[in-house]
Amino acid sequence: MGGPEIERLIELLARLPGLGPRSARRAALTLLRQPRTRLLPLATAMEQAANSVRTCDACGNLDSRNPCSICADEHRDHSMVCVVEGVGDLWALERAGVHRGLYHVLGGTLSALGGTGPEDLSTAPLLARLAGGEVREVILALGATVEGATTAHWLAERLASFGIAITRVAQGVPMGGALDVLDDGTLAAALMARRS
Amino acid sequence: MGGPEIERLIELLARLPGLGPRSARRAALTLLRQPRTRLLPLATAMEQAANSVRTCDACGNLDSRNPCSICADEHRDHSMVCVVEGVGDLWALERAGVHRGLYHVLGGTLSALGGTGPEDLSTAPLLARLAGGEVREVILALGATVEGATTAHWLAERLASFGIAITRVAQGVPMGGALDVLDDGTLAAALMARRS
Repeated sequence: MGGPEIERLIELLARLPGLGPRSARRAALTLLRQPRTRLLPLATAMEQAANSVRTCDACGNLDSRNPCSICADEHRDHSMVCVVEGVGDLWALERAGVHRGLYHVLGGTLSALGGTGPEDLSTAPLLARLAGGEVREVILALGATVEGATTAHWLAERLASFGIAITRVAQGVPMGGALDVLDDGTLAAALMARRS
Repeated sequence: MGGPEIERLIELLARLPGLGPRSARRAALTLLRQPRTRLLPLATAMEQAANSVRTCDACGNLDSRNPCSICADEHRDHSMVCVVEGVGDLWALERAGVHRGLYHVLGGTLSALGGTGPEDLSTAPLLARLAGGEVREVILALGATVEGATTAHWLAERLASFGIAITRVAQGVPMGGALDVLDDGTLAAALMARRS
């Protein structure tokens, strides 16, 4: 159509989540129309990210520093660790700006169907951090799914021996959410956890 | 969140058509999880495309060759030129495999609102090709919009002096299209152009 370079670009773009073949062609065309001002800067940004971003040894976050800028931040509360499934969840909490402590990225949830067992999750760095003695509370911020609940239960048991507070994020009606469009499970959880 | 490299990657990805901030973050995360096997290959593909792909001087197509592989193909019918608005339209026709002649990419359509005048469209290479004497038919494959129709009319007038056939793609019911979901304009055009 326009040489192997264009075909390859479209093929790789189409593998991105959120882009299909059609939108990959449209994105490729947009980039190819401005090779100097759009295509090359994106290529450079990707190369720099690939060469600099590493997984933080202490928490599993992705950062160009190791330990990551959150773990290295002396102004954050090192006595609280929020456990999340993935880096995307960490990003969401950071955007919301609601957690001033540290994080631990598990890298998944236990799933019999998905074939994810305890050995596939990253727990050693968390246990090492807890053994350090500075942490007083671990917040389990896992998804409100069967896998999330199973993983939270399993992890809470593993952490019980440290004698620190283990909490979970609350379940209920999301902000701005109308009751009549919520599923039964959310309604039940919200009703059971009612507050005066 | 994870250093300036990640921020910059997300920012540039979010500018792609079809990706918003949320899907850009998801795409960045997918790429960052596999920097060697996904992120770097995409960066390389982009760099190679940026450094090799040029606009064909003869037709306006994007290709790593100039003249492009279509213009240079001796097996194609050089007596027919299909005029399209953009390279995306050329790609669509090539995927369908329905045109065995050459193309000419106008680079837009006349639009008073959009501020696109005749001087903004690429016509000189088309006129030069017609002056060569080999072309017998120009097919105007412009969109069935007001701008497309205006541009087709204007171009047909400009090409009239060459004394060659000027045709337009038919309008009507698209394949697989149900009549009751089509707009009135399409129904009217399909009825007026009815065939026995």
